[in-house]
Amino acid sequence: MIKVGIVGGTGYTGVELLRLLAQHPQVELRAITSRKEAGLPVADMYPSLRGQVDLAFVAPDDAALTDCDVVFFATPHGVAMAQARELLAAGVKVIDLAADFRLKDVGVFEQWYGMPHTCPDLLAESVYGLPELNREAIRTARIVGNPGCYPTSVQLGFAPLLRSKLIEPTHLIANCASGVSGAGRKAEVHTLLPEASDNFKAYGVKGHRHGPEINQQLRLIAGDASVECLFVPHLLPIIRGIHSTLYARLNDAGRAADLQAVFEQAYAGERFVDVLPAGSAPETRSVRASNYVRIAVHKPQPDTVMVLVVEDNLTKGASGQAIQNMNLMCGLDEALGLTQVPVSP
Amino acid sequence: MIKVGIVGGTGYTGVELLRLLAQHPQVELRAITSRKEAGLPVADMYPSLRGQVDLAFVAPDDAALTDCDVVFFATPHGVAMAQARELLAAGVKVIDLAADFRLKDVGVFEQWYGMPHTCPDLLAESVYGLPELNREAIRTARIVGNPGCYPTSVQLGFAPLLRSKLIEPTHLIANCASGVSGAGRKAEVHTLLPEASDNFKAYGVKGHRHGPEINQQLRLIAGDASVECLFVPHLLPIIRGIHSTLYARLNDAGRAADLQAVFEQAYAGERFVDVLPAGSAPETRSVRASNYVRIAVHKPQPDTVMVLVVEDNLTKGASGQAIQNMNLMCGLDEALGLTQVPVSP
Amino acid sequence: MIKVGIVGGTGYTGVELLRLLAQHPQVELRAITSRKEAGLPVADMYPSLRGQVDLAFVAPDDAALTDCDVVFFATPHGVAMAQARELLAAGVKVIDLAADFRLKDVGVFEQWYGMPHTCPDLLAESVYGLPELNREAIRTARIVGNPGCYPTSVQLGFAPLLRSKLIEPTHLIANCASGVSGAGRKAEVHTLLPEASDNFKAYGVKGHRHGPEINQQLRLIAGDASVECLFVPHLLPIIRGIHSTLYARLNDAGRAADLQAVFEQAYAGERFVDVLPAGSAPETRSVRASNYVRIAVHKPQPDTVMVLVVEDNLTKGASGQAIQNMNLMCGLDEALGLTQVPVSP
Amino acid sequence: MIKVGIVGGTGYTGVELLRLLAQHPQVELRAITSRKEAGLPVADMYPSLRGQVDLAFVAPDDAALTDCDVVFFATPHGVAMAQARELLAAGVKVIDLAADFRLKDVGVFEQWYGMPHTCPDLLAESVYGLPELNREAIRTARIVGNPGCYPTSVQLGFAPLLRSKLIEPTHLIANCASGVSGAGRKAEVHTLLPEASDNFKAYGVKGHRHGPEINQQLRLIAGDASVECLFVPHLLPIIRGIHSTLYARLNDAGRAADLQAVFEQAYAGERFVDVLPAGSAPETRSVRASNYVRIAVHKPQPDTVMVLVVEDNLTKGASGQAIQNMNLMCGLDEALGLTQVPVSP
Repeated sequence: MIKVGIVGGTGYTGVELLRLLAQHPQVELRAITSRKEAGLPVADMYPSLRGQVDLAFVAPDDAALTDCDVVFFATPHGVAMAQARELLAAGVKVIDLAADFRLKDVGVFEQWYGMPHTCPDLLAESVYGLPELNREAIRTARIVGNPGCYPTSVQLGFAPLLRSKLIEPTHLIANCASGVSGAGRKAEVHTLLPEASDNFKAYGVKGHRHGPEINQQLRLIAGDASVECLFVPHLLPIIRGIHSTLYARLNDAGRAADLQAVFEQAYAGERFVDVLPAGSAPETRSVRASNYVRIAVHKPQPDTVMVLVVEDNLTKGASGQAIQNMNLMCGLDEALGLTQVPVSP
Repeated sequence: MIKVGIVGGTGYTGVELLRLLAQHPQVELRAITSRKEAGLPVADMYPSLRGQVDLAFVAPDDAALTDCDVVFFATPHGVAMAQARELLAAGVKVIDLAADFRLKDVGVFEQWYGMPHTCPDLLAESVYGLPELNREAIRTARIVGNPGCYPTSVQLGFAPLLRSKLIEPTHLIANCASGVSGAGRKAEVHTLLPEASDNFKAYGVKGHRHGPEINQQLRLIAGDASVECLFVPHLLPIIRGIHSTLYARLNDAGRAADLQAVFEQAYAGERFVDVLPAGSAPETRSVRASNYVRIAVHKPQPDTVMVLVVEDNLTKGASGQAIQNMNLMCGLDEALGLTQVPVSP
Repeated sequence: MIKVGIVGGTGYTGVELLRLLAQHPQVELRAITSRKEAGLPVADMYPSLRGQVDLAFVAPDDAALTDCDVVFFATPHGVAMAQARELLAAGVKVIDLAADFRLKDVGVFEQWYGMPHTCPDLLAESVYGLPELNREAIRTARIVGNPGCYPTSVQLGFAPLLRSKLIEPTHLIANCASGVSGAGRKAEVHTLLPEASDNFKAYGVKGHRHGPEINQQLRLIAGDASVECLFVPHLLPIIRGIHSTLYARLNDAGRAADLQAVFEQAYAGERFVDVLPAGSAPETRSVRASNYVRIAVHKPQPDTVMVLVVEDNLTKGASGQAIQNMNLMCGLDEALGLTQVPVSP
Repeated sequence: MIKVGIVGGTGYTGVELLRLLAQHPQVELRAITSRKEAGLPVADMYPSLRGQVDLAFVAPDDAALTDCDVVFFATPHGVAMAQARELLAAGVKVIDLAADFRLKDVGVFEQWYGMPHTCPDLLAESVYGLPELNREAIRTARIVGNPGCYPTSVQLGFAPLLRSKLIEPTHLIANCASGVSGAGRKAEVHTLLPEASDNFKAYGVKGHRHGPEINQQLRLIAGDASVECLFVPHLLPIIRGIHSTLYARLNDAGRAADLQAVFEQAYAGERFVDVLPAGSAPETRSVRASNYVRIAVHKPQPDTVMVLVVEDNLTKGASGQAIQNMNLMCGLDEALGLTQVPVSP
């Protein structure tokens, strides 16, 4: 059994980790920390976990995290980098669901997250945790930066096209929409039900933190520093789910290619990426509460490709992917504990 | 033109006052105060008011409220009672949308609202602002306590039965459900969209502030201090709307009565109370964004009456009713500015 | 492995059966019938099942249902009774999710469902499938009538009080609310999103089919033919979930009883019924997509008991309970395949 | 007073016409036809209109439509063209909310709507009813084709750029999302609440009828037959509202232009088009139940323009715009009866 600790278990990625880990056949939950809720049984905050998770939150200082095999950080940005060194020294594997280990360029991190990066050496060592694109590096990683929710869907949608060099690298468009849980479980006005329901809008129009992450990764995937993607997030009045509508211009090779075949080959054998039949339009509920991603590729104009991608932002976009990374890092079957059938309707 | 001021215009009852007053043919908006947002144009906070309301929020101390004819308090409990005396002295009529002037018993107020009542004399003078049940007193009032949203629907549903003495006065049940806007525009976790949507629950099960208000008023309506109503609120995943399902046992007179006729006669001539045909079930959207109340009365068992009532909690349950009171206090047609057709779908 | 067939797999209870059975370790899905969709792969209709269910719908006549160990009917009322005799003769166990085997009085069935009952002998043999209240009879049943969604919650809420004779048997009130999936996957106007969302109403106010089922069962539970429950359903703008707010008057024994202890003892050892701590209010999402029921009991007045019950109408209220019955009928662990953690948020 | 008839008043555009016309100071409603609902009081189908609309539906043959000044067709495609000639001959002005008079090329109409066009001469005479872009022609029109909901938002968003020749004419992208009321009040499975709520998807990915309408109009606006726009609609889990995210590449003139000023000048003096301050992101609720459109223009890359547009699909996208056209055709103030403040929250 793998001994697992969670730092910051009170938010949505925390409770999603708990939902999934409670059903994982090879995991033993050891500690869940919360400075504010120390002493409170986890199931008192989340009645959905009654009878499933018997732990109480513990104060960070009281948690024997160094006894764990794996520690997840489901915390605000900046927490993981403050604690990672000590855990790594004790032989603990670290998976950060926040952004501390996503952006490889310290300057870019500091610009977008407004804080200094306190362990650039660990950042350099850390591995970007998107298994379908980076599996081998994850297997041997000590520290993984779990991807952002939007970047996961955008990368999986563009990767087959960029790797096969079928599209013009600039002017990529990622028109994305996320359910409100992506904003986290924070008391804020703009995500109150009377504000966010029966409503739709773009946001972050002057720049969103997932923009530089997307560009960094698409450039790595393409092996081409000129890749430039315009990322436009929108806020959906749903709880869970991300839908990305991706646009690019096909180059000569792309116009000639069988795009459906390109995608099917790219993801052949992948357990969590489902390429839909030609002509399909995936819907977010088809992956609700699951680790699956569904993708459809279209050629609406002779020189335009459109890719539609859906994922659950809390599962494949956060906690499910984190567990997928844990499985790889611990030598387990990558899909262990993650094969729940999506909940629909 | 009636010169109107609003104290505390940033919440949901505030913006609903603004929506309605901007369309009122006899109102001139003079000042909207907000300590926190002073200087901000109102339409910057509420883009729905762009082109409709040109005022900016002003600090309470800078607002020339004593120049107004009427001042509405759309504030937390306790604010109106601190400022009412000065305004009344200047000849301003005061309408409080909070609870400062609802509960006649100072001890009950202090028990439920956790603060001393600082002007019991004004409380004694104040009039409970439910026009259909208290119209004449409102016409001449200087200070009106605008009813709670739930109590409005419960009173209108039980009043015909209590006045005609058709039901047993004890064991009344008010099983009510409200949209989330009833909780106000406050940054809180439990009203976030991911918490409150696709969900339903009872709340306030140990006692809710509207309970004593309901009992006070039902006793007055019945002229019977033994009236006792069990009030159980539930939280609906909708923005606006209250639905009350009321139960009572019929006495001998009630079993013999034509309940449909009782209700139709009780509300004959009322502009805002619509008694539906026998056998109906009103839906909240049938009054959305309007000042109307729709009521259906049923006799599901020979000795049981069930009354179904719907209102928009922000309009008839708050700001619309406040303007109805203003119209009465100022000698205008009671329905002026309040005849918008409900928005459906 | 238990060989399972499903008759009528295209509706919401059908797809919920498929979601759960696909994850059941002891089930082999053999056939799913649909006259209208014969030939269509199940996963083409329900993309959430892609990679999980490989079967296509087959025409009823082509399905080798008599080779199955268990056949579920997720069909309109009247289908199961037409086919049950042949299946039973072939040694197949039958579980009907419709109403053919719920109401023991043929006359009552015919009055409420508007069709003759064609096999009264099987009706007499059939067992009402609410395991927590009827477990031993289910174990040996050949044919089970799976309870209605509302009646499941109402029975589990009233049973401890009725069995212990703590309440007056008449004037019980079941004020219930259900998500829209309870209306089934039928093309109808009143359940369209623009009709049913951002809205709330009572319905079936002249009588609902679950009313006689509730009264039949509460009388059996109480051993008292005088039990009379007023059942009032409401339509919630959510997908899944039933919330029941139950009211009854306590008799002398009830006023003296420790109601919390009564409920905790009644459900001690039950895997799927969770009695919440005193003072709680369960929310529907706390059981979303799971087979759990959560119950809270309150005494808001010295002689009044209020019970709050939540379930997922498609799971414990339909397909999950049907599988729970299957497990019992087949000698398996009652909870097998049904321990998914609720999905929240 | 203008005498108005409505053909086909039972759908969502019909009830929205009724909501607005009931409040229009210069309109007298004469007849509302419905073959299926003849005899039914309108307010029985739409309780929100109780006390506001006293008419009953009449059979088409019994409606004295030729006595009206204006007749609106809120019918399926094909109905208006069958009845328009007779009405025009009687001197009645005709406004069609369906597609019979939108597409000027008969062949394109027949390809996308699957029916022959029976009056090409009237089609040639008809005027496209988007007042902000076509006001003078509407003033003198006898017959108006009311624009599609999506095309209204897309044209208003691209028009300033196309008229000023600031963008490359090909590869325009209109990534749009609509509330479910856009699908009409038809009994269909895919728009049921359990299907469409808590969900998001693209649809019409193989081609949508509004695509050719958009291209026809953008070419007219630009005076450039090479304009080509990729239109991708998505289905939002809201009742009302369209959000369009528009992308285009700036040409040299566009890169140099002050785009904010271009939009502000283009819509200066327009009563219903609100250009937001630079940096804004409009939300659909800011125009809910109103005839307003709000637009924000962005330059996220040196050679890319992004325009965000919101409208209420039933109001400015259908019935409100139809009344705006009526006002123009009848010589009234264009905004008469259309100045309701949006409902928010």
